[in-house]
Amino acid sequence: MELAWIERLRGESGVGFLGDDAAIYCGKAITVDMLTEGVDFILSEVSPELIGRKSLAVNLSDIAAMGAVPEAALVAVSLPRGDADANILLAEKLYSGMKPLMEKYGVTIIGGDTNCWDAGLVISITLIGSVLPGGVFRRGGAQADDVILVTGELGGSILKRQFLFEPRVFEAIYLNENHLIHGAIDISDGLAIDLYRVAKESNLGAILNSAAIPISPDAFECSLTSGRLPLDHALSDGEDFELILATPETEAKKLLETQPLLNRYGTKLFAIGKFTADKNLLIANPDGTTNILKPKGFEH
Amino acid sequence: MELAWIERLRGESGVGFLGDDAAIYCGKAITVDMLTEGVDFILSEVSPELIGRKSLAVNLSDIAAMGAVPEAALVAVSLPRGDADANILLAEKLYSGMKPLMEKYGVTIIGGDTNCWDAGLVISITLIGSVLPGGVFRRGGAQADDVILVTGELGGSILKRQFLFEPRVFEAIYLNENHLIHGAIDISDGLAIDLYRVAKESNLGAILNSAAIPISPDAFECSLTSGRLPLDHALSDGEDFELILATPETEAKKLLETQPLLNRYGTKLFAIGKFTADKNLLIANPDGTTNILKPKGFEH
Repeated sequence: MELAWIERLRGESGVGFLGDDAAIYCGKAITVDMLTEGVDFILSEVSPELIGRKSLAVNLSDIAAMGAVPEAALVAVSLPRGDADANILLAEKLYSGMKPLMEKYGVTIIGGDTNCWDAGLVISITLIGSVLPGGVFRRGGAQADDVILVTGELGGSILKRQFLFEPRVFEAIYLNENHLIHGAIDISDGLAIDLYRVAKESNLGAILNSAAIPISPDAFECSLTSGRLPLDHALSDGEDFELILATPETEAKKLLETQPLLNRYGTKLFAIGKFTADKNLLIANPDGTTNILKPKGFEH
Repeated sequence: MELAWIERLRGESGVGFLGDDAAIYCGKAITVDMLTEGVDFILSEVSPELIGRKSLAVNLSDIAAMGAVPEAALVAVSLPRGDADANILLAEKLYSGMKPLMEKYGVTIIGGDTNCWDAGLVISITLIGSVLPGGVFRRGGAQADDVILVTGELGGSILKRQFLFEPRVFEAIYLNENHLIHGAIDISDGLAIDLYRVAKESNLGAILNSAAIPISPDAFECSLTSGRLPLDHALSDGEDFELILATPETEAKKLLETQPLLNRYGTKLFAIGKFTADKNLLIANPDGTTNILKPKGFEH
């Protein structure tokens, strides 16, 4: 869906940035994400504060994937029709959930639109970030033999991390200012499909080392009831919101040895494979065999 | 609802632009409007092309109300879940409806987000415009004794103009470049309430001359079945998307005599009253009496 619509716009408008996590416009990175009830959250099962938090955090993650610095947001909301007091309370709780992230990452809300209607809660946030002197991370910037890094453990985000994840904003800024990153994306739909997007935009393939993929304890927990392997959760669960980074081997070596993000932000980098001139997406098994990796994940 | 949420943000964030039709950020005017099924359109009663058109046109009207030049849009959509082909077709029709306005007003879509969910169609467009050297029109810029101008006939937009109205983009740019405009707003919720917003932001009141208010033929037609006076439709129907302008008397005189927008764009200006240091909102009747004008209109 997303892809067809984007491809069409690309063809028609000649815009070259639609494949990235954010558009670059007049020196700013700009992104929009719309969250809807029943897809991104269940209003009866989670607090409005966590919904508000998530709606800003997913946009912060997009700005982080560009290596940009978040600055300003416009917040459009449609609330399920109720009495005015209940609606104001809901809007305020959504806002309360955004506020700690706004303070932590320096985001100001500069505008918005609030409506009521006879259906579920919808929140659409447009987030603007400034571009650092070093430029932005692009999906299409990876090069053959670049090492694939990820910023944390993957899989099982549905248990809680989908609401509580920390967008890798500071990490991305640090990497942009101090290291050579060729390309990046945030894992919103799943490691395999988001890795595929970077590979495709870069006209490359990739090979993952299955034994090196950091699997979240949540993935193991999900595995107990899903009947799927923990590795499968790590490969195809959405909403990890860790970054996939493409970086040259020498830079990757430096990053893995010194782990600069670990001391600063408690964020460990993992090398999980490399990009290849061969355009297949592969996964190497512990027994030495390789398989085609299907770009599975959450498709909107 | 809108007001409470905005007031809260104003108080907390210290942002001074939330009362305007668009935020001013880094030399750009930025606005967002979210349209929802059942409130802004009935999907079964109107073509997707007209829905797409309206979703962009309301944002163009906000940029026009700022006297800015539209440039770039981000389009976030949530489609009612259906089969993939039907969804792609719906998305393409929405886009087809936007395209003539994009071409006419020079708007490029630079990004977006497309989703499906189990509820109605939602479209949220963020529109960015550039600010002219003369600055922007603000709601809070009106001065006492400024003449109140409107750019067209009012009332009864529900019959068809809510989908077919022409946003006053070229008119606003022309006025900004060639005339002295103290303040402006577009009539999205109704003449009375939107006039009230300008008066309030400007710490003024206003008096309308009821006999001077241009009443649309649509308002007369609505009146036949609504049991309300045509004037009442003109005062409180929403979605006219004409501009209310505040301009000094001498400038108003010049504009009314020469009607520069009429030859250029077929748009006639009407003087309907003036802003007053007295903070009441009044309407002068043909018999010489005046009444308090209630800021009625469509409240989100």
